[in-house]
Amino acid sequence: MKKLINTPDRVVEEMLRGMELAHRELIRLIPEHNVVVRADAPVQGKVALVSGGGSGHEPTHGGYVGPGMLDAACAGAVFTSPTPEQMLEATKAVNGGAGVFYVVKNYTGDVLNFEMAGELAEAEGIETDYVVTNDDVAVEDSTFTSGRRGVAGTVFVHKICGAAADDGKDLAGIKELAQRVNANARTMGMALTSCTPPEAGEPIFKIGDDEMELGIGIHGEPGAERKKIEPADKIVDEMLAKILGDSVDYSGSEVAVIVNGMGGTPLMELYVAYAHVADVLKREGVEVWRRPYVGNYMTSLEMAGFSITLLKLDDEMKNYLSAPCTVAAGRPF
Amino acid sequence: MKKLINTPDRVVEEMLRGMELAHRELIRLIPEHNVVVRADAPVQGKVALVSGGGSGHEPTHGGYVGPGMLDAACAGAVFTSPTPEQMLEATKAVNGGAGVFYVVKNYTGDVLNFEMAGELAEAEGIETDYVVTNDDVAVEDSTFTSGRRGVAGTVFVHKICGAAADDGKDLAGIKELAQRVNANARTMGMALTSCTPPEAGEPIFKIGDDEMELGIGIHGEPGAERKKIEPADKIVDEMLAKILGDSVDYSGSEVAVIVNGMGGTPLMELYVAYAHVADVLKREGVEVWRRPYVGNYMTSLEMAGFSITLLKLDDEMKNYLSAPCTVAAGRPF
Repeated sequence: MKKLINTPDRVVEEMLRGMELAHRELIRLIPEHNVVVRADAPVQGKVALVSGGGSGHEPTHGGYVGPGMLDAACAGAVFTSPTPEQMLEATKAVNGGAGVFYVVKNYTGDVLNFEMAGELAEAEGIETDYVVTNDDVAVEDSTFTSGRRGVAGTVFVHKICGAAADDGKDLAGIKELAQRVNANARTMGMALTSCTPPEAGEPIFKIGDDEMELGIGIHGEPGAERKKIEPADKIVDEMLAKILGDSVDYSGSEVAVIVNGMGGTPLMELYVAYAHVADVLKREGVEVWRRPYVGNYMTSLEMAGFSITLLKLDDEMKNYLSAPCTVAAGRPF
Repeated sequence: MKKLINTPDRVVEEMLRGMELAHRELIRLIPEHNVVVRADAPVQGKVALVSGGGSGHEPTHGGYVGPGMLDAACAGAVFTSPTPEQMLEATKAVNGGAGVFYVVKNYTGDVLNFEMAGELAEAEGIETDYVVTNDDVAVEDSTFTSGRRGVAGTVFVHKICGAAADDGKDLAGIKELAQRVNANARTMGMALTSCTPPEAGEPIFKIGDDEMELGIGIHGEPGAERKKIEPADKIVDEMLAKILGDSVDYSGSEVAVIVNGMGGTPLMELYVAYAHVADVLKREGVEVWRRPYVGNYMTSLEMAGFSITLLKLDDEMKNYLSAPCTVAAGRPF
């Protein structure tokens, strides 16, 4: 295992500490709970957005905490759901009296724990609600999921609902918007390599030197198909065919696009992929709105691979997607 | 070789095409020369900044083209210097009548070719000047370099001199500032893995499963020392000892810090490293100014590893470092 870490059992705590030290004007850490909170939380009178999940997907989740996106993020152990207690602490830290909204990716542990956190919070008089995202078109059920998995499309929920919450939208409105974004988002991923959780010390799966896995999840869950590596354009063709053949009709629409690196993919290769994504979408009559998002948005440790997300936009989504936000993930300079 | 590409001999062209398609409001491509140019170039009356080098270091160089940073970037083949003809085309495309300034990393091919481009440009009546960056403290001479190598500290030259050029500083002033930034910047890198240029198809060097290379260059050139992998804190100690023991006295100063991923390093690990960087700098009386830059700024394809850069700041540098810029590398949302 080749990792820049000290000891596997401290990697999440040390990462969060580094993140807080690096972005003190944006975030603060509740270290005993591994919760990252917006520095100025709670913001009174605003719906607060909380997300979270296993670590190893950085910049998801802590990198998206800040004005215009999330109010808090709960960091579980690597690829492991955070606990209801963490989520409750996050809820209490960000509650500004207008309710707390959970953005939950569809993994069994995350869903159960956020539901329990919501009950605990309600018992303390804090109104909560949640959305479960399931944008992954690759498989219907999976290792950790009943139904479709929630993957990179979830970042659009963070961005759009974060801006809406800043704009004063109420809890019911945020929920409706989150459901609408999720319903219009579809993602498909692939992997060239596996990845190694620090505590396990071994790759999650084995894959041949000439093989790839289409439809991979973000925890190394098996994908839809194992096959020989193909040229980038052919891979993009297959991924977009799956997305465009699903239940959202993107043709004739303006869409937001993420070409998301899985952690170990050079930016060079993401741009090679995007060139063909742009060509295919143009041919299919799908208009890329404003500009695509090409980079590492939701990763799987050091996995080499990428995913494509399409989001069919309406005017409200466009307005909130283009609103400013200030988060650790978005500030190279 | 596991890469998301179509064919090795087209990877640079396809990457640049993807980059242009993704950021059309910021940049345009001169495709026959693999030159990325600021969309509104030439900006009349402003010194124009041009950089470039081999591809495979993305977001360096094209990702830094835009208002507040570079006017153009020349993309060579992977890990191969661009030609004087490319540089001349870039020079002519961005010349706004106030001179063109080249930011050149100290690699023999880059230096020779930018010098030749400068002569060609002067023959066409365009005034040029240049700086050669050499911030790497790891080794004095190297595979492709006489003297020290230019590495991630060069990004500070792009940012600070880019802002100064926008602010109206003249060619001589830009040169003095670039030399001052370079003189105050020191970088040290390390690698856990090698990397594979697409056309070669084989890793540049072999490294054992339990080994790391300290003092690596950005093209897989040998570092200062091959040794067993150590805990992240110990690696940071050794890298900072080398930087702080060099000729710039950082103690008692405000410094800008880059913790730069080499391409295949998860953000999680960069934050683990930064936590200890912050501790050591505090202990040594070095103040991190504003916030550090943690992410992939100058990569080596899919190499796992990272570098640390310190820049001792003066008021002028602070002013220009915090000025806004709009470049592809800096716009996740």
